[in-house]
Order: sequence, then structure tokens, then C-alpha cells
Amino acid sequence: MRAAYHRHIEDILSDLVHMTQKVATAVRLSTTALLEAEIHLAEQVIGDDAELDRMYTEIEERVFTLLARQAPVAGELRTLVASLRIVTDLERMGDLAAHVAKIARLRYPEVAVPDLLRPSFVGMGEIAETMVIIAGETLHSRSVESAKELRARDEEMDDLRLSQFRVMLGDAWEYGVEAAIDVALLGRYYERIADHAASVGRLVIYVVTGEFPETE
Amino acid sequence: MRAAYHRHIEDILSDLVHMTQKVATAVRLSTTALLEAEIHLAEQVIGDDAELDRMYTEIEERVFTLLARQAPVAGELRTLVASLRIVTDLERMGDLAAHVAKIARLRYPEVAVPDLLRPSFVGMGEIAETMVIIAGETLHSRSVESAKELRARDEEMDDLRLSQFRVMLGDAWEYGVEAAIDVALLGRYYERIADHAASVGRLVIYVVTGEFPETE
Repeated sequence: MRAAYHRHIEDILSDLVHMTQKVATAVRLSTTALLEAEIHLAEQVIGDDAELDRMYTEIEERVFTLLARQAPVAGELRTLVASLRIVTDLERMGDLAAHVAKIARLRYPEVAVPDLLRPSFVGMGEIAETMVIIAGETLHSRSVESAKELRARDEEMDDLRLSQFRVMLGDAWEYGVEAAIDVALLGRYYERIADHAASVGRLVIYVVTGEFPETE
Repeated sequence: MRAAYHRHIEDILSDLVHMTQKVATAVRLSTTALLEAEIHLAEQVIGDDAELDRMYTEIEERVFTLLARQAPVAGELRTLVASLRIVTDLERMGDLAAHVAKIARLRYPEVAVPDLLRPSFVGMGEIAETMVIIAGETLHSRSVESAKELRARDEEMDDLRLSQFRVMLGDAWEYGVEAAIDVALLGRYYERIADHAASVGRLVIYVVTGEFPETE
């Protein structure tokens, strides 16, 4: 019984790692869809989000069942409780990648992002994807060090976002209101993906140490 | 022992109801701060958010303790698990009200919202506050009917948001890029407050019926 129980917990963790891989793919494809006006990729990310929602519901139910049937204590309880929050973060990241893809689709065949901010969104896409991958590795290795790395990347994301506001409010902005609205929302979506990845890192620290690291 | 345990669960639920009242206040004050450029109210909402964060951490710890010390099953387990998600929704709504207040503060002594969209933001503020209040009542009464009402209000919010985009992209928009960015983000924050209130409603339905109602 106990051996099966531990295996169930390990299975949940490895399914969460698997889910981070799917989220990383969604983030990468939505960024390409955005920067290259690739409508098929945008549709793919939007369609594939249902699979992430399904994984979310399925993993959550398994955690509930374990919580109900076993009486987990200490580290096991922490792991299960953290899993519930991690799966929520991952589901939300999938939604946000789909939001990026929806803006790409809305502006197709145009590119939603003006040339002036293209490098900035390349950077945001890379940081977001990297953070999701690090979150998955952190979960796999339960390494407190890689969890800390997430915080540094999260700050890079915030810096990029601030620089986008400066560009939009500067004299060189000649792209009008619609592009500014798109950029403001896209920047927000990437920033939130980064926040959720950082949250996964904090939850792994909680699982390992029993303490929550301070947020910001 | 069991009586104390049930009292602990009831205490958690009533503290969640108390937290919805604080969130409703934060939403109301941040809307006034926004529409009247009331810098002191903005500062108050931003400062008071720490209290919501403290309540969040404290309620979460109590739920963890109950999960660990008791072996809750069926309805009790559902209630505790739902409480963890409800407290996360409420903490997030507090953050979003603080985001609204921060934009009000950033534009002070100007009003961030252009006159043309003032009625729309009055509407968003009212819907958001009402939804938080209904979420609290739903939690208090565990009424499936009032949970359903949240969905209708959530749709009104989405309609208001769409109408804001139409106004910003129409010919009558003479307020420039900065105001458009503010409106796009403010609209997003109110929409997310509504989403989280609707989520509380769905979690109450889950507690009462054991089934999750479909999202959108």
C-alpha cells in the first residue's frame, strides 16, 4: 500500500514535469506565431490548450484522491498541496500562451508586433520559454538552486516590460493606438507566464525546505 | 476532537467570507481612486494589500494543518481543497485592485480614464464589486443559485471590455497612446477580478455538489 502510494506521488510529479514540457512548447509556438504571423501555429496553440486543461483536471483529481485515501503528513502533504498549486500555475501559463496566439490570429496576415519592438518580444519569448523549462527541471531535480535562478530571469522579464512602455510613450512610436494596446497586453501575458514559472520555483522550495521563500 | 475539527472548518469559511468583504472594499476604493484621482485612496488600497496577503498565508497554513492532522474525506476534503483555491483567488483579486490603484497613482493629479470611457469604468467597478460581494454571499450561504448569478455578471464584464476596445479603435479616440495603454490594462484587471469571483462561485458549486461546473 505505502509503496503504491509513493509511486502515485512520483507519478504526479513526473506528469507535472511532462506538463511543463507541453507548456514550454505552447510558449515557443505562440511566440513564433506572433512574430511570424503564422496562423496555423496560432490555431495549434489555441487548440492544444484543451489538452493542458484536460491534464490539469486529471492531475488535480488524482491529488484529491490521494489526499482523501491516504492521510499524508509532513513532506508528502507538502508535495501534494504544492502539486495542486503547481498544476494551477501550469494551466494558467497555457491559457496565457493561448492569449498570445489569439492576438497573433486577430492581426493575421499582419504581424501584431511592430518592428521597433520585435527584438524585445524575441527576448520575452526566450525568457518565458527558458523559465518554463527551468521550472520543469526544478520540479524534476527538486533543486533549490535552479528555483532561485527563476527569480533572476523574472527580473529580466520585468525590465523588458518597462522598456516597452518607454518605447511606446517615446517620440519614435509611430504605430498608433491599436499596436500599443496589443503590445501592452502581450507584455502583460509574457510577464504573467514568468510570474507563474517563478511561482513553481517557490513551490518547489516549499516542498524541499518546508518554508515559503518571500515573494518579490 | 471532531467537534473542534468541524469548528475549525467553519472558522476557515467565515474567515474567507471576511476576506471577500476586504476585497470588495479594495475594489470599491480603487475604482474611486481611479475615477476621482484620489491619491490617498490609491495609497490606502496599495498599503492594505499586505493585510490580504497576511490573511492568505494565515488561512492557507490553517488549511494545511487541518489536512495534515485530520484525514478529511468526502465533503470535508472538498471544502478544504476548495478553500485553498478560494483563498488564492481572493489574494489575487486584492493584487488586481492594487494594480488599478497603482495606475491611478501613476497618473495623479490627472485622471487615468478619459471622459469618454468614464461610464464604462463606473460599470466595470460596480460589476466587479458586486461580483465579489455575491462571491462572499455564495460562500456564506453555500447557495448554488447565487454561484450561477456570478456567471451572468461575468458576461456583462466581458461585454464592457469589448466595447472599450471598440471605442479605443474608433474615430472618436483623441486621447492618444498612453491613455489607450492604461485602459487596455485597467480593463484587463477588472476582467480578471470578475474571473476570479466567478471561480469562487464554481468552487462553491464543487463543495456543494462534488462536481465542477464547466468553465466558459
